[in-house]
Amino acid sequence: MTIAQQDSTETQGTGLQKPLQGIRVVDLTRVLSGPFCSMLLGDMGAEVIKIEPPGQGDPVRAQGGIKDGLSWYFASFNRNKKSVELDLRDAGDKALLAELIRGADVLVENFRPGVMAKMGFGPKVLADLNPRLVSASVNGYGSTGPYIDRPAFDFITQAMSGFMSVNGRADQPPLRSGQPITDLVAGLYTAFGIVSALRARDLNGRGQHVESAMLNGILSFMAYLASEHLMTGALPERTGNDHPLVAPYGLFRASDGEVAVAPSNDIILRRFLRALDLEMLLEDPRFDTNPKRFARRDELNALIDARMATDSQASWIDRLNAAGVPSGKVQNLREALEDPQVQAQEMVIDLPHPGHGTVRMLGFPVKLSETPCEARLPAPRLGEHNDEILTPLRAALSARAGAGKT
Amino acid sequence: MTIAQQDSTETQGTGLQKPLQGIRVVDLTRVLSGPFCSMLLGDMGAEVIKIEPPGQGDPVRAQGGIKDGLSWYFASFNRNKKSVELDLRDAGDKALLAELIRGADVLVENFRPGVMAKMGFGPKVLADLNPRLVSASVNGYGSTGPYIDRPAFDFITQAMSGFMSVNGRADQPPLRSGQPITDLVAGLYTAFGIVSALRARDLNGRGQHVESAMLNGILSFMAYLASEHLMTGALPERTGNDHPLVAPYGLFRASDGEVAVAPSNDIILRRFLRALDLEMLLEDPRFDTNPKRFARRDELNALIDARMATDSQASWIDRLNAAGVPSGKVQNLREALEDPQVQAQEMVIDLPHPGHGTVRMLGFPVKLSETPCEARLPAPRLGEHNDEILTPLRAALSARAGAGKT
Repeated sequence: MTIAQQDSTETQGTGLQKPLQGIRVVDLTRVLSGPFCSMLLGDMGAEVIKIEPPGQGDPVRAQGGIKDGLSWYFASFNRNKKSVELDLRDAGDKALLAELIRGADVLVENFRPGVMAKMGFGPKVLADLNPRLVSASVNGYGSTGPYIDRPAFDFITQAMSGFMSVNGRADQPPLRSGQPITDLVAGLYTAFGIVSALRARDLNGRGQHVESAMLNGILSFMAYLASEHLMTGALPERTGNDHPLVAPYGLFRASDGEVAVAPSNDIILRRFLRALDLEMLLEDPRFDTNPKRFARRDELNALIDARMATDSQASWIDRLNAAGVPSGKVQNLREALEDPQVQAQEMVIDLPHPGHGTVRMLGFPVKLSETPCEARLPAPRLGEHNDEILTPLRAALSARAGAGKT
Repeated sequence: MTIAQQDSTETQGTGLQKPLQGIRVVDLTRVLSGPFCSMLLGDMGAEVIKIEPPGQGDPVRAQGGIKDGLSWYFASFNRNKKSVELDLRDAGDKALLAELIRGADVLVENFRPGVMAKMGFGPKVLADLNPRLVSASVNGYGSTGPYIDRPAFDFITQAMSGFMSVNGRADQPPLRSGQPITDLVAGLYTAFGIVSALRARDLNGRGQHVESAMLNGILSFMAYLASEHLMTGALPERTGNDHPLVAPYGLFRASDGEVAVAPSNDIILRRFLRALDLEMLLEDPRFDTNPKRFARRDELNALIDARMATDSQASWIDRLNAAGVPSGKVQNLREALEDPQVQAQEMVIDLPHPGHGTVRMLGFPVKLSETPCEARLPAPRLGEHNDEILTPLRAALSARAGAGKT
């Protein structure tokens, strides 16, 4: 466990400027896909200003377990952000938002397509307010096509994308993932798109619109399953934990637990069987080609299981990895988070939240050697930064009104 | 289907500079996680130079279905790249690689930690060759910690991360995803990290090292499952297609097929039941709170299924979405790729590959309004760009040797 350091400056560590230092993000997102995106920007050094409905805030503030008055789900997706309350149906607050947008670099939202325009912030308005603005949408289906008005949800886009069709066992129906994967993939793609668009702006001086949809994102993860289907027309099968084409592969039984083994090519297969002292099977006419091994998979797996039973799970995992065979165990979430490798990678961090104790959360999946991601700010209290952010905006608005009169 | 246009310039469309225009990427990756990362960079306008073992190339050239002499799996992950053959065990070829690195902006590899150093390209050497270089590693477990020497594979990191522990049905064992999700998440995080590091370099003048590991990436997707566990210590359960806490939720039976419905909060639940003409259930003492609905889930689902059976799948999906209820169907990969929304989003593109016909592949999951991603180049033939890239490097090396002598 690492205690994340809090720091009011943006230049901790090496003192070098961070990737998104000086970038101000107006964050209209709520719940998961958008807040994940804006958190990634905050982790890279951006100033993220989270706009929330007055008195109420992001619905996630009230979701999941609450401890010392704080939702840890909210805390873990809203670090490195400031909170400002604005009522986006109120004309005065809309004027403040417009003023905020004038001086911002990025605006990110995860409304349904068209909602921004209805609120008076369509593409033309945004471009007029700030031609250098990178505006970004995370949404379900994109902003063109027949489904643009549909409300989206992770489970639905998992279903529609084909993800579920390849998740599950052959003898059972398609299955959703327990991870909210389509939200997160879309949020991550959007963050990548935003930083790319900022770099384009650095080159060409102009802002633009970035969009990533949950359905498109998870579809792009069909990878070789898609290329095979597009070539052959055949549909990929659900095969549970077995490889659709290769044997041996999967979970094998050591004396005290299962070991996952993935011998993905002939070289690694030979290492695996050699480590088991079963290399002679590769000369055995029953098993000397992959098609034969695949056809006699049960028989082959039984021979391997018999050998695996002679030693423990931990010992086999060490022995196989040392022999160059990818291997590990199925871990529950506690085991995963306590895994010494996960700890060494600082993937669990403790962040003090004044008034709410210390929140333990996931760390940073992107490691930068000179300008590392940092938890500079704990998740904000609702409206915590109203004064800091809104007072200068009000002054600027007054000055603008005064200038307009003279 | 969109026919992707080929274009030798980098400034198609609006003529604006692309996010990674002028960025030269030395790409030492092979197979999946790394090539996915470098493809994302190429799609954003970078010049990606794929270094391959002479005569042999990336193993994926020989994997998956081959049509007209081309692996479509290879083609779909290596668009927008050039191919150069270099033998990284040969001193002369290493000198050429060093020369290439001197003039490059990014180097990306997906070897095991330590392999680059063994080849003579450790961090110090890279920094000496080119202090502005952004070097990047996509790997299994990161480059610190007890598992750094382990070979990684998607299935193994799915197992270790807790992903499998929440994927599957309650009455059955943990399950892997059919998508190679940990490779792709790590590749995408690395691309995000690289563009971020380039932006940091734009600000502070210095390159740095970027790293993203498969285990860390998929772990970061545990999202609220992780925050709940870290708060309470309880382990998330596998619940198949049911929501762990909310009812109704999941798949319901229309007259001709199932409909996925995700009423994630009370407002959407009311819309759902109203659309079914079952709103009175919310006043029914058997079902007037979520805990009651959850406890009587089978009874409730039967009432809903009876109503759903009165109309077709397509009709319910339209009606529910129009009522603001996220809804869709479980599609296989063919249905997903032929879905009118997916087509409208141009998520399937056709790219001509001279000598190998036209390859159909997935499109671009990040949409940029002014500098859109493009398929400028089809996947290269092995060594197709040897002369273009190596001839100037040889001249520069000779000049350097000559300068050294005088």
